[in-house]
Amino acid sequence: MRFHTRKWIKPEDLNANGTLFGGRLLEWIDEEAALYSIVQLENQKIVTKFISEIDFIASAKQGDVIEIGIKPVKFGKASLTLSCEVRNMMTRETIITISNIVMVNIGPDGKVLPHGKTQVEYVKDRL
Amino acid sequence: MRFHTRKWIKPEDLNANGTLFGGRLLEWIDEEAALYSIVQLENQKIVTKFISEIDFIASAKQGDVIEIGIKPVKFGKASLTLSCEVRNMMTRETIITISNIVMVNIGPDGKVLPHGKTQVEYVKDRL
Amino acid sequence: MRFHTRKWIKPEDLNANGTLFGGRLLEWIDEEAALYSIVQLENQKIVTKFISEIDFIASAKQGDVIEIGIKPVKFGKASLTLSCEVRNMMTRETIITISNIVMVNIGPDGKVLPHGKTQVEYVKDRL
Amino acid sequence: MRFHTRKWIKPEDLNANGTLFGGRLLEWIDEEAALYSIVQLENQKIVTKFISEIDFIASAKQGDVIEIGIKPVKFGKASLTLSCEVRNMMTRETIITISNIVMVNIGPDGKVLPHGKTQVEYVKDRL
Amino acid sequence: MRFHTRKWIKPEDLNANGTLFGGRLLEWIDEEAALYSIVQLENQKIVTKFISEIDFIASAKQGDVIEIGIKPVKFGKASLTLSCEVRNMMTRETIITISNIVMVNIGPDGKVLPHGKTQVEYVKDRL
Amino acid sequence: MRFHTRKWIKPEDLNANGTLFGGRLLEWIDEEAALYSIVQLENQKIVTKFISEIDFIASAKQGDVIEIGIKPVKFGKASLTLSCEVRNMMTRETIITISNIVMVNIGPDGKVLPHGKTQVEYVKDRL
Repeated sequence: MRFHTRKWIKPEDLNANGTLFGGRLLEWIDEEAALYSIVQLENQKIVTKFISEIDFIASAKQGDVIEIGIKPVKFGKASLTLSCEVRNMMTRETIITISNIVMVNIGPDGKVLPHGKTQVEYVKDRL
Repeated sequence: MRFHTRKWIKPEDLNANGTLFGGRLLEWIDEEAALYSIVQLENQKIVTKFISEIDFIASAKQGDVIEIGIKPVKFGKASLTLSCEVRNMMTRETIITISNIVMVNIGPDGKVLPHGKTQVEYVKDRL
Repeated sequence: MRFHTRKWIKPEDLNANGTLFGGRLLEWIDEEAALYSIVQLENQKIVTKFISEIDFIASAKQGDVIEIGIKPVKFGKASLTLSCEVRNMMTRETIITISNIVMVNIGPDGKVLPHGKTQVEYVKDRL
Repeated sequence: MRFHTRKWIKPEDLNANGTLFGGRLLEWIDEEAALYSIVQLENQKIVTKFISEIDFIASAKQGDVIEIGIKPVKFGKASLTLSCEVRNMMTRETIITISNIVMVNIGPDGKVLPHGKTQVEYVKDRL
Repeated sequence: MRFHTRKWIKPEDLNANGTLFGGRLLEWIDEEAALYSIVQLENQKIVTKFISEIDFIASAKQGDVIEIGIKPVKFGKASLTLSCEVRNMMTRETIITISNIVMVNIGPDGKVLPHGKTQVEYVKDRL
Repeated sequence: MRFHTRKWIKPEDLNANGTLFGGRLLEWIDEEAALYSIVQLENQKIVTKFISEIDFIASAKQGDVIEIGIKPVKFGKASLTLSCEVRNMMTRETIITISNIVMVNIGPDGKVLPHGKTQVEYVKDRL
């Protein structure tokens, strides 16, 4: 798994207990899954269709730096299934894991559209 | 299931496709689960421990009004399991369903603490 | 009065004194008035025209759960007048009351438009 | 009346109709009233106690620049009453007016505290 | 230099150290430069092209009131160069200074467009 | 230069022209510089001291995915100087470059503190 996007936990990200608000973390993961899919499928119209069980293993506190990892699991005909792990960047402690996030490719008409991709591509190889 | 919190979909809630950003919706659900638990367990220190599969059935667009429903599924010793449905308030169309959201009761020392509750209570009966 | 939308006071909602920022509360009330009107008048183009005196009776602090109640006061030809109360959900203590919030129905051309409604309707009866 | 704080209407400030969200405007006004009071009363603990009738005279749209004016109306023993006008900076068209915003001075113990001020002071004269 | 827009430092504006988040301050300055240019050049399509060295002289903490000053430095053919100072409103202590912020005037086609202005104009003189 | 954090441009990130708001981009860069420094210097108290000239080479629009690259330039006694490039992830087009961002290490007493680091370290080698 490759970890890219990093976040710095600031007061605006805390719940009322002073730890990282779970909803904020889910928001960040959904964004990361979307942008990973946009780049892989070369299409900006991608929607989240399904997220498998989410296990909150540890929390994070103000000032922590976390990083979000995404790995492709399966290229479907019109979908891309990803797995995700979020960890504390300094300690490598796992904060959350999700086995399957299913993203779906959408055409200009708003309907599901086959994407024609079967494997991970790197942007540098396309250019 | 009782539907309480309502949201009005504004530009700041949209993804780059102009539909409701999934991450924002998850943020709202997590907040609703937390506040439902705070009121039921009479404790402000509650954390999200687990969320079961999330099925994105429909989306919502700018200007739509949605409502978030929460139902208790099981009172554990130190936990409370909830189910959730989000629907479009005007059409009653289901947007998302989640069968199990497990919230855990935390004590002043930051550790799991039994909450002593076994069933739904209404605030008006406590006062 | 029926209380629907609930909010959990998080650090991002506080003023510099560490209590609920009044401006944030007004933002929430305006949103609730708008969505109540959208549902009642079956029109998404609704604007706030007038808000009567606002009395800040009590405040709220981080971790509190509050709920926002709206009640229709008068159906005008092109307007809907609402009253609002916000209270602490656990203690039922009143935080703010507003006697009259006048919402106006707007047509596709951006001008005031009669809405043809004379009383509260329930979505379930329409479907 | 002196107009200071200016805002540029961006997509995040719009309601679902694409015009300035009234709740956002109220949030900005409350912040301006608070900071005006903090500077005048030389105390950071100030709370909003009362806002008189709010008349939404015109709206604003994306890209507009608006400015918020505050004028002191009355120095009470522990309070400061302000009036407010918001206008479009380019056209000088009035967007909203509020005759009385009552801010209250709070002591370190969280209780109302006389502030000893009787008139407007300028920071440059204090330094 | 004339200081207009004022900000009240709230928890949502803090970095993880509890002082004003530098990125938030830069966001405020960029907005102030944009709206100053919109008013001077009488055009809503203005973009930031260049910002000279930024010196963070002092910080600010929760509850402080700061004010942002902008001064025109040079009217170019299609640009406007501004200088900026941010200071603590109560103490007049300088927080940040920027010598040159170059804003560029954009035409309806998205390309650079001469603005025809050569000096500061006051809105009241135009009306 | 290694590119880590990625952002998906959503409506809430746009200026009034519908392109990426420059102030938002500066906010993201400052956060990335801070978290890079926190990890390298193994200290959560880091402040931005200086940012050299910022050249806005290209913009980005709604739906684009951008990535932020940071490279260490110089380890000072109590500081860390970074360079930054932001680019469009799909086209590799450069959006912004900054040669020097000086971050300063702060001790528990709020004063500048030598950090004792002289070169880039990888978290995996520390663990």
